[in-house]
Amino acid sequence: MKNFRKDKKQNNVGASGELVIYGRHAVYSAIKNKKRVIKRVVVAKENLAEFRENFGDMAVDVVDKKEFMKIVPVDAVHQGFALYCSRLETYDIRDLVDENKDKSLIVILDQVSDPQNIGAIIRSCVAFGVDGLVVQDKNSPLESGAMVKASAGTMEHVKISRVTNLSRAIEILKDNGYWVIGMDGYADTMIDKVNKDGKIALVMGSEGKGMRRLVQENCDTSVKLNISELVESLNVSTAAAIAIYELTK
Amino acid sequence: MKNFRKDKKQNNVGASGELVIYGRHAVYSAIKNKKRVIKRVVVAKENLAEFRENFGDMAVDVVDKKEFMKIVPVDAVHQGFALYCSRLETYDIRDLVDENKDKSLIVILDQVSDPQNIGAIIRSCVAFGVDGLVVQDKNSPLESGAMVKASAGTMEHVKISRVTNLSRAIEILKDNGYWVIGMDGYADTMIDKVNKDGKIALVMGSEGKGMRRLVQENCDTSVKLNISELVESLNVSTAAAIAIYELTK
Repeated sequence: MKNFRKDKKQNNVGASGELVIYGRHAVYSAIKNKKRVIKRVVVAKENLAEFRENFGDMAVDVVDKKEFMKIVPVDAVHQGFALYCSRLETYDIRDLVDENKDKSLIVILDQVSDPQNIGAIIRSCVAFGVDGLVVQDKNSPLESGAMVKASAGTMEHVKISRVTNLSRAIEILKDNGYWVIGMDGYADTMIDKVNKDGKIALVMGSEGKGMRRLVQENCDTSVKLNISELVESLNVSTAAAIAIYELTK
Repeated sequence: MKNFRKDKKQNNVGASGELVIYGRHAVYSAIKNKKRVIKRVVVAKENLAEFRENFGDMAVDVVDKKEFMKIVPVDAVHQGFALYCSRLETYDIRDLVDENKDKSLIVILDQVSDPQNIGAIIRSCVAFGVDGLVVQDKNSPLESGAMVKASAGTMEHVKISRVTNLSRAIEILKDNGYWVIGMDGYADTMIDKVNKDGKIALVMGSEGKGMRRLVQENCDTSVKLNISELVESLNVSTAAAIAIYELTK
């Protein structure tokens, strides 16, 4: 057991941009993922026995629960578990495309910036068998503790492609036989009326602004959910969940 | 403009159980709701002109943005707006039931305790025209700032019934012609295979534990969403959104 109170530099790993995962389920799932390079496991004293049961004599820093305040964000529900590890590698967009598949769904996020929303969308992607998630590198947050937590362990199972240019990515998907559907509150067509056969790329815009115009123009069609006028919009992760459910059922 | 720094008692109104709403959209929607008794409006200096444009010469405390730390939770996205006001009145369960309706959906939450999940579920209820939300008084949090914020202004449009006994509430709904469907990950039937005609009461259990046994036994049938084995469960607000969408479309 190291005394890492004095090891400021190590404590700041999270703050300076390295990935710190927290929460029992998120940490357990990440440790089990062979693709992660584990750098440091931090467990609260009272969780050590449980951790040993699950992971044997794996190297671990045992700390007081209050020590977690130095490791994770102030409002983070860490449950006495934290993990410093590598971010997962991302994929080339062509790796998301399987020529042998007749049916496929790929989700594209245009400027969705809230890590919790992205984590929640990842959870829905994995739940309903989405083949990959495409985001624009420039305006999409890197994998973070909040994102992994919101994904409830599913971050380990999603293929993410970070692209430079979303319109170019859409072109590549079209070239590979994908029909590109944008979610747009002003569309005329309801999502359940769209042809669900074949390969679909679903584009979700940001909650406030929706899709950018150029991205929208690159879509083959636009669809909406039929919601009450009392509601301006749904949360983007809720809208994505419903759309993914509808397109994969 | 009052100096309320020294007025500890008033500052603690939120902490001691009264309702403090925060965030531009949540505060605006609540002020516009005639059913709210407005006790105090707090606006950050830089928002005063905007507020005056919207609400004229309404009485308001103008404060520095940092003052909000004393009013709202530490991680709250308040955007420089807070409101002390009455909680909305709840409804008798019989008030949710309209004899003249052929179709209706009422949502019942069994031990869902996270205010943000409840707020998100309220947003979906209003978005898809749900006729009311039923919770058990004993184990469901009161209307709170976090709940109102998560509802994105829709708290003002939902009918909530807080009942002593959920099984008794289910009996009343059955007596009024409702078919009671429980969401249960272990059910055999997919939700889209259920008969959507007529009046439906949808029961959602808590995220961790699901429905309590007695509540489940009172359901007419159980249904599930078809999710991957890689995912233990969906977030309860996501599952509710999909179920409400499916049952109302």
